[in-house]
Amino acid sequence: MPKKEKFKIGIMGCGTVGSGLVKLLRKYSLRKQSPEIEIGKILVRNEKRAVEIASELGLDQSLFCTLATDITENPEIDFVVELMGGVDHTKKLLLEALENGKSIVTANKDLLALEGKDLFETAKKQQQTIMFEAAVAGGIPVIATLKQSLKGNHVTQILGIINGTTNYILDVMKNQNRDFEDVLKQAQELGFAEADPVNDVDGHDAAYKTAILASIISGKRIDVNKVYREGIRNISQNDIRSADKRGYEIKLLGVINNDDDRVDARVHPVFVSKSNPIAGVRLENNAVLIKGDAVQELTLIGKGAGSLPTASSVFGDVLMLASQMQLGENPNPQYVCQHSDYAEIKPIDEVENSFYIRVSMHDKVGVLKAFGELTEKYGANIKFIDQYDASGDQAHADLIFDPIKEKAFNSLIEEMKELESIKAIESVVRVL
Amino acid sequence: MPKKEKFKIGIMGCGTVGSGLVKLLRKYSLRKQSPEIEIGKILVRNEKRAVEIASELGLDQSLFCTLATDITENPEIDFVVELMGGVDHTKKLLLEALENGKSIVTANKDLLALEGKDLFETAKKQQQTIMFEAAVAGGIPVIATLKQSLKGNHVTQILGIINGTTNYILDVMKNQNRDFEDVLKQAQELGFAEADPVNDVDGHDAAYKTAILASIISGKRIDVNKVYREGIRNISQNDIRSADKRGYEIKLLGVINNDDDRVDARVHPVFVSKSNPIAGVRLENNAVLIKGDAVQELTLIGKGAGSLPTASSVFGDVLMLASQMQLGENPNPQYVCQHSDYAEIKPIDEVENSFYIRVSMHDKVGVLKAFGELTEKYGANIKFIDQYDASGDQAHADLIFDPIKEKAFNSLIEEMKELESIKAIESVVRVL
Repeated sequence: MPKKEKFKIGIMGCGTVGSGLVKLLRKYSLRKQSPEIEIGKILVRNEKRAVEIASELGLDQSLFCTLATDITENPEIDFVVELMGGVDHTKKLLLEALENGKSIVTANKDLLALEGKDLFETAKKQQQTIMFEAAVAGGIPVIATLKQSLKGNHVTQILGIINGTTNYILDVMKNQNRDFEDVLKQAQELGFAEADPVNDVDGHDAAYKTAILASIISGKRIDVNKVYREGIRNISQNDIRSADKRGYEIKLLGVINNDDDRVDARVHPVFVSKSNPIAGVRLENNAVLIKGDAVQELTLIGKGAGSLPTASSVFGDVLMLASQMQLGENPNPQYVCQHSDYAEIKPIDEVENSFYIRVSMHDKVGVLKAFGELTEKYGANIKFIDQYDASGDQAHADLIFDPIKEKAFNSLIEEMKELESIKAIESVVRVL
Repeated sequence: MPKKEKFKIGIMGCGTVGSGLVKLLRKYSLRKQSPEIEIGKILVRNEKRAVEIASELGLDQSLFCTLATDITENPEIDFVVELMGGVDHTKKLLLEALENGKSIVTANKDLLALEGKDLFETAKKQQQTIMFEAAVAGGIPVIATLKQSLKGNHVTQILGIINGTTNYILDVMKNQNRDFEDVLKQAQELGFAEADPVNDVDGHDAAYKTAILASIISGKRIDVNKVYREGIRNISQNDIRSADKRGYEIKLLGVINNDDDRVDARVHPVFVSKSNPIAGVRLENNAVLIKGDAVQELTLIGKGAGSLPTASSVFGDVLMLASQMQLGENPNPQYVCQHSDYAEIKPIDEVENSFYIRVSMHDKVGVLKAFGELTEKYGANIKFIDQYDASGDQAHADLIFDPIKEKAFNSLIEEMKELESIKAIESVVRVL
């Protein structure tokens, strides 16, 4: 039977997720479940924070420390839960923990996407495990699903709504008929978006998560800087209305295709058909659609952020790690990173996509013919065209193109802009 | 590092799911993943089946056996994958396997719901693990999610579309405007429904799965005979049209509420609001919506049956079990059944539900007053009422009642039937 029934964890950082974890630990211990999990130490910035949090969460002040070594070098602490965020300094602390034989649970997507290599290599050398369920899609168990349940699959595609802030903004833009800047400002006031929104709005956060998922399903390391990235700043009310009229919702997606020698991993807004199970995912919710050769299609929908949902995943990892440590000294082979090479990422130019464009044009004879000649030149096939808003010699048209290599499509767009009949290409959005 | 890199499995039964597993094993070994999984023996009914399947799957005939002891007593076989179905005889074989120190992966929901007690107790005594991801919702990893990822949650509710056949029938009834008997017949011809459809159509299959899920989240054994069960035979085109008009889809759900001393576990058709993420689950797909105190709401949607999706879950379990066995000799504590007591199941009479009813009546003065008096008598609150199809003195009405105890509601319905103004209560369906 299990060798050890009680584990002590060191928690680094006690903000939103950390205090959620403390609350869950308390409820868990009231349910008298096994194994027992106790807080060994909580690392906070300074004494003042320690006093504040201790009183806020009803914890004894002796549990707090301001020196990381009180956790990383503490022989009483079985493993470390990192919820402080940040990259360089945090990496240093976690390497110390690993070198002292402590496995790690972390929710830090930036750290893993940017500095995962050193961390996972050190973990492997030290025979420790790094668990990171909460790093992607908050409360949704996508990492365990990929690493364990779907382990017998070749996963060919992932489509993820993995940034709650942008999904919230797009949803409110649509359902309240408001513009991007306006909704962003409100989201900032409500705390759904950060004061500096670049990380969310320009797709950096989604790119980190996409890189992590792509790494798991490709079995290779992913250079996050090679993940193509486009945010939602250019999405307008007109785009949203056109999408709606044509049977689509606009979502910022992490897209991964893993059916080729080169991994196609990117983040950008997409027209998603309303019949797709992720199209209806509203507000700050997240969703991950996984295609595998065995499971066919699996969709997971839930809370992508927030104190308790994120702590739910962190705590799931804590309990999984504890149960593995009950089994023996070795790290769980399903969670040991086996990657050694970097994946070759398919450059965006060579990716084939379907596209929506909205054109404003002079409504006169010959427009269609000029269009037709150009599309033929680039081998582009128009799947759908609808002209509307005609008044005087002005009109708008929505076009949807069948999949075409991005490079050819961009050249087509450049030439289209030069056509006499075209006033402007008002919008270009990829279509799933 | 891991002690053992190669595992031999004994597969009992090689029908739809078994042959799916063989195909996945072959692809897995081509990918050279770790740990290696080899087929030790495959148990089939007789020599003739062995010859047929060996040729069909391109396997060596020496892999097949017709004696269960060639698996259960075979020292070369590390663990057993049971995909033969059946209850009594299968139980006997699996007990033998457990007693010979072999852990088990099974997809057999009937067996676990009906005879789980003996199996899990024997597994615990023998320090073996029983894995059963494929027993509920096919390719959807709901068991791992509940036992591992959400382990730190108190799961308060599960709503499950966990029978693909009935979801298929209801979907086709709605989208092709056809009647139950008609669609059932076609589903039987297409192989979506069995020749004897009782197990699916009357909710037995869903009740087994509901019992398994209820057992996991309540931490107690569930007597499946106490799970209230109502199938979809009485659902009519009129019900489906009324539901649609009022913003609902009709789904056969497994419903579990786990927020009380007594577990509320039941299977019946339900009006599900179209805004619920499981309302849009079409054809033979399955879905499980989980509410927990930490994760809030998590929805999993995927294939609930079929050769490869079910084999995906079986293979996930095989790999998880193998990785646990790499760690040490003990069973994974997260998969050891800790239950000892039976849960008290809340009798359906005491459950509170919202209800839809369709009434045909004589359209005359006083109807509403009589209704009003009756509903007042039983403390029933009408949330919605719409009268339609009036012609002559005839009319129909759709009513939706706020939650009320089932016992009081049934008495109300009995008295309503006696009202002079009521021709018939044509339908009663619960509303989520």
